Amino acid sequence: MTDISEVGEFGLIDRIAERIKEKEGLVKGIGDDCAVLEDGDYYTLLTTDMLVSGDHFNRNWHSPWQIGWKSIIVNISDIAAMGGYPEWCLVSIALPDDVDYEYVDDIFKGMLDASEKYELSIIGGDTTHGDLLVINITLIGDVEKENLCMRGDAEVGDLICVSGDLGKSWAGLDLLRAGKEGYTEFHLQPDCRLELGRRLAPHVNGMIDVSDGLASEVNHICDESGVGALVEKDKVPISDRTREAGKILDKDPMFWALSGGEDFELVFTIPEEDLDRIEDTEPIVVGKITEEGRYISNGEKKPLEGGYKHF
Amino acid sequence: MTDISEVGEFGLIDRIAERIKEKEGLVKGIGDDCAVLEDGDYYTLLTTDMLVSGDHFNRNWHSPWQIGWKSIIVNISDIAAMGGYPEWCLVSIALPDDVDYEYVDDIFKGMLDASEKYELSIIGGDTTHGDLLVINITLIGDVEKENLCMRGDAEVGDLICVSGDLGKSWAGLDLLRAGKEGYTEFHLQPDCRLELGRRLAPHVNGMIDVSDGLASEVNHICDESGVGALVEKDKVPISDRTREAGKILDKDPMFWALSGGEDFELVFTIPEEDLDRIEDTEPIVVGKITEEGRYISNGEKKPLEGGYKHF
Repeated sequence: MTDISEVGEFGLIDRIAERIKEKEGLVKGIGDDCAVLEDGDYYTLLTTDMLVSGDHFNRNWHSPWQIGWKSIIVNISDIAAMGGYPEWCLVSIALPDDVDYEYVDDIFKGMLDASEKYELSIIGGDTTHGDLLVINITLIGDVEKENLCMRGDAEVGDLICVSGDLGKSWAGLDLLRAGKEGYTEFHLQPDCRLELGRRLAPHVNGMIDVSDGLASEVNHICDESGVGALVEKDKVPISDRTREAGKILDKDPMFWALSGGEDFELVFTIPEEDLDRIEDTEPIVVGKITEEGRYISNGEKKPLEGGYKHF
Repeated sequence: MTDISEVGEFGLIDRIAERIKEKEGLVKGIGDDCAVLEDGDYYTLLTTDMLVSGDHFNRNWHSPWQIGWKSIIVNISDIAAMGGYPEWCLVSIALPDDVDYEYVDDIFKGMLDASEKYELSIIGGDTTHGDLLVINITLIGDVEKENLCMRGDAEVGDLICVSGDLGKSWAGLDLLRAGKEGYTEFHLQPDCRLELGRRLAPHVNGMIDVSDGLASEVNHICDESGVGALVEKDKVPISDRTREAGKILDKDPMFWALSGGEDFELVFTIPEEDLDRIEDTEPIVVGKITEEGRYISNGEKKPLEGGYKHF
C-alpha cells in the first residue's frame, strides 16, 4: 500500500503517460496545459478540469453563479496558456440531494455568462446525481500553428515574465478560512488572461498559466524545456491588497505567490531583445531562463521549491 | 425552491440548451449521444460522462480495474450510437483520502485496457483530490459524413431494432444490492457495441445506445425525430440468465429492460426493405416507428413509459 502523497499528482500523471500509445495526429499529449492535435492550418487544443465541492469551491462562500463562472474560467486559462482561443465546451455535473433547481440554474447562469464573455459555446454534457457537487468542464479550442506556445518552448537566456500580481487567490482563500474580511473577490470570482494570451502568443517562447503557484509553473517550464531558471524574489509582483491580507493573517504573501495557485495569470519566457514587442502588455520580468538548476534569489540563491499539492 | 426531481435530468438539459448561442461549425449540440462538429469529410463527435462513486459504481462490488474499464466503455457506447469511432480521450479523476496508489493504478489499467481494445488514446486530463471518487471521461471521435446516425433520423414505417438482450445490467445491480448470487458479470464489467455500430451505420436511420432503458431510448428517438412508436412487449429480448435473476429477486425483468439502463446495446430504426442488408448483425425487431403516440403492446396498447431517473 503506497500513499498517494508519496507519488503525488505528477507522479500519477507520469505513470499513466508512460503506458499510453501515441497515435498519428497527436502533437502533444499529457504534459502541457492542453493536449494538441493536428488540424490543417490550426492545432486543436483540448483541456479538462474537475471542480469538486470542498476542494475547488466552498458552497458556504461561493455563490452558485460563482461556482459556474469559475468552472469555465479555470479551463479557459489553460487554452490562454497555449496562445489559443476556446470554441466549444462540454459540461458534466453531479448534483447532490440538497441542491434545488434554482441553485443549479444559477450555476448554469455563471457558466453561460463566462461562455458569452469568452465566446465559447456549450454543446453537450452529462447531468447526473452524486453525493457531492462536482463539475467537470472540457474545452475544445484552436490556435494558429505559428502561435502555439508550449511549456517546452523556453530557451536559455529568455526572460521569465508574469502577466500580473500573484498570491491573490490564496490570500482570499486563507481570509475566508479564517473568517476574516479582506481581499476575497478574486478568489471567489477569478478571471483569466485569454485576450492577453492571444496578444503574447506571436512573440513569446514558453508559456503556462498559474494554477499551482509560480514555483510550480516555473519548474514545469524547466522540466519540459530542459532548462534551468533563476527567479528574483523581490521582483515577484504582490499587490498591496494581498500584502494587507498577509498582515491580517500574519502570513507571508510570498508563500501564496509561489505555492498558492489559482491566480490564472500567465507565466511566459521571451528573448530579452523581443521585450519591446510586448511592451503594451506591461510584462513583469521576474527572472531568467538558465542552463540548469532552479533557484530563487534575494541576494542569496535558494532552491525554487513549492507549489500547491493536491495530495 | 423547486426540487430537481420535479424538473428532472432532461428538464435541466432543456433549460441550459435554450440559452445557448449556436456557432458556425456546430451540426448538433445538446440532445444526442454526442455533439457533432463539422470537420471536412468527417464529423467530429464529442461526448462526456461522469461516474460518481455510489451512483455509477460501488467500491464494494467493482474492482478498481472494473471502475476504470467501465468509465471508458460507457463513453465509447455514445460514439458507437452515432455510427462513429473514438480517437482521443481526456480523463479527469478526483481521489479521496482512502484510496492508495495501487488502487488508482488499477483504475488506470482498466482505462488503458479499454483504450487499447477500442484503439483510442488518452492524451490529457486532470488528477485532483475530492471527498468522493469521481471519474469524468471525454471522448473525441470521428464519423464519415454519410455514416452519421442521429436520434432524429428515424422515419415513419421504420422497424425498431435492438442489438442484444436487455435488462442484464440492472438485473446484476439488483442482485448485488440484495447480496444474492447470479448474473452480475455484465453489470460489473459491461462492454459496448462499437464494432456493430460501425457495421450498422451505413444502413440504419435513427440510432441511440441503451443508457437509461429501452422505454427512455425509444422516447428520445420519438422526441428528436418527431414520430411515434409501437413496441411489442413480447419481442423485447431478455436472456434466460436475466429471467433467472428476476425469479431469485421476485422482480419483473421487463422493468429492468424498459427502465433499468446501462445495457449499452444499440437501439436503431431501419426501413423494413433494408433489413436483409444487416442480416449478419442479427438485429432483433421489437417494434415500429409510427406517426404519433408512444406505446407498448402485448395485445393491449399501453403508454411507453419509464426509464432510469437520476433525480
